[in-house]
Amino acid sequence: MTTITELFACADEVSGTATSAPVAPAGAAPLLPVVGADTTVPLVDGTSRTYANLDCAASAPALEAVAGRLTEVLPLYASVHRGAGYLSQVSTALYEASREAIARFVGAREDDVAVITRNTTDSLNLLAGVVPAGGRVLVLDVEHHANLLPWVQRSGGAHAGTGRAATILPLEPTVVATLGALRAELARRPYALVALTGASNVTGEALPLDRVVEIAHAAGTRVAVDGAQLVPHRGFSLADSDVDYVAFSGHKTYAPFGAGALVGRRDWLDTGTPYLAGGGAVRDVRTDRTVWQPAPARHEAGSPNVLGAIALAQACDTLAALPAGALEAHEQALRERLVSGLSAIEGVEVARIWPDSADPVGVVTFTVADLNPGLVAAYLSAEHGIGVRDGRFCAHPLLAHLGATHGAVRASVGVGTTSEHVDRLVDALATLLRRGAQAEYEVVDGCWSVVDDTRPLIEVEGLDHLAATAAAACGPALDD
Amino acid sequence: MTTITELFACADEVSGTATSAPVAPAGAAPLLPVVGADTTVPLVDGTSRTYANLDCAASAPALEAVAGRLTEVLPLYASVHRGAGYLSQVSTALYEASREAIARFVGAREDDVAVITRNTTDSLNLLAGVVPAGGRVLVLDVEHHANLLPWVQRSGGAHAGTGRAATILPLEPTVVATLGALRAELARRPYALVALTGASNVTGEALPLDRVVEIAHAAGTRVAVDGAQLVPHRGFSLADSDVDYVAFSGHKTYAPFGAGALVGRRDWLDTGTPYLAGGGAVRDVRTDRTVWQPAPARHEAGSPNVLGAIALAQACDTLAALPAGALEAHEQALRERLVSGLSAIEGVEVARIWPDSADPVGVVTFTVADLNPGLVAAYLSAEHGIGVRDGRFCAHPLLAHLGATHGAVRASVGVGTTSEHVDRLVDALATLLRRGAQAEYEVVDGCWSVVDDTRPLIEVEGLDHLAATAAAACGPALDD
Repeated sequence: MTTITELFACADEVSGTATSAPVAPAGAAPLLPVVGADTTVPLVDGTSRTYANLDCAASAPALEAVAGRLTEVLPLYASVHRGAGYLSQVSTALYEASREAIARFVGAREDDVAVITRNTTDSLNLLAGVVPAGGRVLVLDVEHHANLLPWVQRSGGAHAGTGRAATILPLEPTVVATLGALRAELARRPYALVALTGASNVTGEALPLDRVVEIAHAAGTRVAVDGAQLVPHRGFSLADSDVDYVAFSGHKTYAPFGAGALVGRRDWLDTGTPYLAGGGAVRDVRTDRTVWQPAPARHEAGSPNVLGAIALAQACDTLAALPAGALEAHEQALRERLVSGLSAIEGVEVARIWPDSADPVGVVTFTVADLNPGLVAAYLSAEHGIGVRDGRFCAHPLLAHLGATHGAVRASVGVGTTSEHVDRLVDALATLLRRGAQAEYEVVDGCWSVVDDTRPLIEVEGLDHLAATAAAACGPALDD
Repeated sequence: MTTITELFACADEVSGTATSAPVAPAGAAPLLPVVGADTTVPLVDGTSRTYANLDCAASAPALEAVAGRLTEVLPLYASVHRGAGYLSQVSTALYEASREAIARFVGAREDDVAVITRNTTDSLNLLAGVVPAGGRVLVLDVEHHANLLPWVQRSGGAHAGTGRAATILPLEPTVVATLGALRAELARRPYALVALTGASNVTGEALPLDRVVEIAHAAGTRVAVDGAQLVPHRGFSLADSDVDYVAFSGHKTYAPFGAGALVGRRDWLDTGTPYLAGGGAVRDVRTDRTVWQPAPARHEAGSPNVLGAIALAQACDTLAALPAGALEAHEQALRERLVSGLSAIEGVEVARIWPDSADPVGVVTFTVADLNPGLVAAYLSAEHGIGVRDGRFCAHPLLAHLGATHGAVRASVGVGTTSEHVDRLVDALATLLRRGAQAEYEVVDGCWSVVDDTRPLIEVEGLDHLAATAAAACGPALDD
């Protein structure tokens, strides 16, 4: 295990690269220390290897700074809000200071509200509930399900009859044409809101936000950004972009403790349907009527996830304290290395939504000849200690567009990723195509597994059913 | 600070009391070590004192075992479900094993489903969404808002028109009469569900669950229990009680990391409206239709709070490993000491819903002569380092019944509470009534505060606005 001192030495070294003479090219070392960076995993050949986590787009490891902050505040934890005790007031202050830090990280305007939610999915479901009655919502079919299903469900599901109809606009072959289609649709009829991704969870691409905001605002339409893949990787500012709402997740922002956020314009949040009915969200309750609070309390019924919010705020502060451009430089270097490495392998195809999109984040999806994506992912894990994702990435309509209805493989990077991880992936794929896998693989309960897997279990309680639960989790019944 | 070794020595000593010759009477020492047990807080006289957390009913401190488990698993944390990497499979296995442990702790039947939620409020909102269309719900007006508002909102709010009407039954002066009223109402018209508290968050009392189940099931009505105050303090078994659903919270079960649970019958959960629309909850999405998963995935859209679930499971396992009866004995000893101490003070009145209720949990609400509850709570904190809660405890209709529309003071105990905490509270109240407070208090922004407060801030970042945020949090606008 690396010691804390070594980890911080490593962080210093990197911050040195951004401010003075570089000691290593961007991406050579982690940008920030993450918990578990030195965790080793067993391989089928009997050796073990440091884990290469290339699934940061799904869940990123915790920053060491986040873990340290939790250790610091846990002895001070007590009930928030109405608790009169000293530690209740301390915990309340820490919670509200976290809300401020989270709002600051996404450049909230003075009158914006930050609601602490559980993740992006939760944030967008909440937002879907406060769009004024009769207000139509426009989404593109490139979206992650989190930014697709809440709007569709509000149209025809639980909220049927509220008049909050959603239109799903098919993407066009280029960014320019897609922006044109967006403009045309907004001219065709009034929309309350356009909800779009800040960076695709499949390809890392996005429409230029400034153009979308310009087009939407000209039509009197607000803009909500699914920032799950954008905020942790590029930073984002509501004030600078003039976007109206942004949603993002702690578990993708190096703070995997169950808190995310929705930040944006106060009016809809102050008056819309309360998200959860319960204590804290109401001002007064009699059995015959209820008076609800304004935002954010209106949408945070029940005891809030105080420690999750503190963790997310710490991650925001730590990312914000990086030298200007360091986050982008680290990720761009790794993405370019990955894309050029993959593109050089005969048989590997990197997916792209639009040929004219700019500056995608570090999420790269590809197919490997005619090999099943599940087999490729199982091979990368079992023979190289690499974690990637395979499937349809909760973006089924987009995968259909990309001609990958049967799925693909996705590699994604973060602040803990190094060029060694990227090189290992590229080399492993080249080896696979050149000479095939060393182990044998088979599909068990819909999940690609090693035949006669001899890898030992990591020594931690709760892994008795590792194979069974892993299989259940990746079976064909599960959304992928 | 106590060292880890000292804490575990303390735990050993206590488990010794339960299995062999007692070294101290029940309640003399903590039953289990909790994080922050030795945190000191400043007093207005310039001294400092170990914090007496008597607000466990709102949020309980983390068990040392929970903090230890998180430290153990954090380096293994990775994306769950579709992630193919070794650590993704480990994290998935840990998450699913946590679900099993949580279900086991509440005695789930073989076909019951455990949905990981954020807290009890969230669980009951979820359940309110899956009651079959046309199914009426019956609740008592003794309930916490978490078990009142979701049903009311489903009747007239977001889900208007689904026919899920709720009836709020006023409590009767005795348990016997209340059970009679329940039986009469269930005979009057058909109900799908009776939702009731397992232990009041105001007085710790409850109707006898076995009788409610008998009456409800005879009428063809299911029973859901708000277990927020019951499960952590008494344990609970779905199988033994024949209750159909139970909801509870991690932050009241010594695992304050944003996860709670809803556990119960599979059928409604398998087919009811998906709780959150998003990835993981669906089997297949095309732009023209969505096929949803069965439970629990149906209700857990987005990346789950893996670490919150692991924390809650550890708390469940640690509580379950206590010697039989130890939890009840610890709490009963403290409650009895508290109630008899309070009752001996002229001017202090302990609230009680029913004279014939049995075995209340360790939650005690009282009024202190004609003193404002907020003043009493501020005094206890500033002069004695005691944390209690004042207000209406998110149970406004019950407080009105108890004749305490202007609020009361609540003290509640947990596994980290000792008889010293209880004695300190009783002595402090006796002193207050005998000779008054030492400091001066005033209402600032609706919140009772010390005039010219000289207490230093605890040295932790994020407390710049302690007074301001604490005041904002306890102002009259906030639900209490």
